[in-house]
Amino acid sequence: MTVQPFNPTPRTLMGPGPSDVHPQVLQALGKPTIGHLDPQFVAMMDEVKALTQYAFQTENPFTIVVSAPGSAGMETCFVNLVEPGDKVIVCRNGVFGERMRQNVVRVGGEAVMVDDAWGTPVSVEKVEAALKANPDAKFLAFVHAETSTGALSDAKALCALAQQHEVLSIVDAVTSLSGVELKVDEWGIDAIYSGSQKCLSCVPGLAPVSFSAKAVAKLEARQTPVPSWFLDQTLVMGYWSGTGKRSYHHTAPVNSLYAMHEALRLLKAEGLENAWARHRAMHEQLKSGLELLGLDFVVDEASRLPQLNAVYIPQGVDDAAVRSALLERFNLEIGAGLGDLAGKAWRIGLMGHAAREENVLLCLAALREVLNG
Amino acid sequence: MTVQPFNPTPRTLMGPGPSDVHPQVLQALGKPTIGHLDPQFVAMMDEVKALTQYAFQTENPFTIVVSAPGSAGMETCFVNLVEPGDKVIVCRNGVFGERMRQNVVRVGGEAVMVDDAWGTPVSVEKVEAALKANPDAKFLAFVHAETSTGALSDAKALCALAQQHEVLSIVDAVTSLSGVELKVDEWGIDAIYSGSQKCLSCVPGLAPVSFSAKAVAKLEARQTPVPSWFLDQTLVMGYWSGTGKRSYHHTAPVNSLYAMHEALRLLKAEGLENAWARHRAMHEQLKSGLELLGLDFVVDEASRLPQLNAVYIPQGVDDAAVRSALLERFNLEIGAGLGDLAGKAWRIGLMGHAAREENVLLCLAALREVLNG
Repeated sequence: MTVQPFNPTPRTLMGPGPSDVHPQVLQALGKPTIGHLDPQFVAMMDEVKALTQYAFQTENPFTIVVSAPGSAGMETCFVNLVEPGDKVIVCRNGVFGERMRQNVVRVGGEAVMVDDAWGTPVSVEKVEAALKANPDAKFLAFVHAETSTGALSDAKALCALAQQHEVLSIVDAVTSLSGVELKVDEWGIDAIYSGSQKCLSCVPGLAPVSFSAKAVAKLEARQTPVPSWFLDQTLVMGYWSGTGKRSYHHTAPVNSLYAMHEALRLLKAEGLENAWARHRAMHEQLKSGLELLGLDFVVDEASRLPQLNAVYIPQGVDDAAVRSALLERFNLEIGAGLGDLAGKAWRIGLMGHAAREENVLLCLAALREVLNG
Repeated sequence: MTVQPFNPTPRTLMGPGPSDVHPQVLQALGKPTIGHLDPQFVAMMDEVKALTQYAFQTENPFTIVVSAPGSAGMETCFVNLVEPGDKVIVCRNGVFGERMRQNVVRVGGEAVMVDDAWGTPVSVEKVEAALKANPDAKFLAFVHAETSTGALSDAKALCALAQQHEVLSIVDAVTSLSGVELKVDEWGIDAIYSGSQKCLSCVPGLAPVSFSAKAVAKLEARQTPVPSWFLDQTLVMGYWSGTGKRSYHHTAPVNSLYAMHEALRLLKAEGLENAWARHRAMHEQLKSGLELLGLDFVVDEASRLPQLNAVYIPQGVDDAAVRSALLERFNLEIGAGLGDLAGKAWRIGLMGHAAREENVLLCLAALREVLNG
């Protein structure tokens, strides 16, 4: 077998992630690899940390980028904070709430589920009732922006409830970070994780994570060792601490962190509020066009995510054939449905660098062509 | 705070990893990101799998690349295969044997330690005695090439013992893969992991892993769920299986896998045996020069790794000052000592693309200049 070099056809990425990567980010990615303990790299990491704090709107000293994808970011939160026997109220209104439950169970925690229908936000009332019914709960875990449905939940209200009932909040911000308003300190979020490949428009493979002082205190008070060595933040912090000598834990993904540095730098240059407004504006344009095509949204307008537009596939239309035609004819990727929505919906992403007017126009024109042509 | 774009100074990487990355690999890394379920990407992954099988010299269908660094590759093996109560004979002759023990303990296994001095290989006799004394042991775990000392252990003999005593072998090949002879099928290795950033000369952040049929059977017969969701290979295999529809588990690190494809492709083009011979030849040249400089090796000649040369720091020489001078004056990185050898030894890597004559010459000339200048 002789293997040829791989030359991917450039695509426009309007699925649920990875999203279009900015050319400057790809350029940063390909810069020469240097050592993970090189003073130049260590100085760059300090900037990555400060920029990640900006993106999360937090001053948490414990703010790092996990050397693995978003699902490892989720696991970082659960495996470090939840001890065997801890009760966790888990909100489930899509694929990722269920994944949170699996994380809780695997570390020996007890999951109390608050279920809402797919496509609807987490019910603040149900969560309040669950907190009242479970005074021994230690955590409230929910997904801010459900990537499987496109529903936005009220993280501010949910975290206020968590504080009132003295439980720690664990928030999935994989799809929300930098696409919609998110204020970690102001809202009192205790543990949060995201992914590099959604609205940050970086390459996939990294997970920004931040813990509040209360979360760090819970970690430090653990009675049992963290079950994962790789994700044990008591060890990782020796490398990310930024004070004095950095101790070796594992070899950082040097080049991916170059890309993260550039993606976060571009976000800072645009300004978070401007990024949120851009996602909203592009969504409004896309929405008008999708409605003209007769496509119905899965999620009600009030809790619809601008960066992830789930629409029902019209009756009689072949899901896979449409997606293949978009990819083959126009090099345009949109997402299939996931879980309960598999075969029933498409997920059209407007994430980060993909949230541009030319993408909206292309997507609408291509869909029109394929559906009506 | 305005953050400037990061422009790393190109370095020659002759530490314990990351190693010099081939320009073609960096070029592949920076190619446009496409979706992780794009048919083009899926076809490339099939090639990555076949090339990883070649590098490991195995036909194991269960051969994947974990979306995280080498230490997550280690954890993948322990967390999937070792169940609570399982007895594991763990060989410890450096930092990474101790890390294996921590992995065993964290998943609830029982570690029976076989200790050898730092800088010496794992004693085949001691392992045989441990296997005889522990007929209930289920695994033998050892490091093929100890990155902390530069000692090579006899993986062939150790795995033969494991087979004879009907225990599964778990082998750390982070530093050995493609630098010294390694034959997974011929030697009967049951679980093996490596890292992308050593002798494969790919960017850091990925971990090739392979399980034998016996290891897969042990995984499938588990009585308890795999404690890690992210590393649960019963879930990951749905994506890597290569047969029919790929199911979503997590978003693959698309660009890093482009780089891995190119690094493995270059290895295949050179040929494994040629790569082993090149590492050996470059080591012979470096060794002669280091001896002329009066530097003594930590490891006896018989079990010395060609790709990782640990030498004692001469008395009266300032460790950090020498490494800083090499980096600042010549852009040359060599490694500090780790663990017991911190402050006592340097680790000079000749890994992958770094194992070239110009690097050997530069390293010797620069050391001579800094030590005698």
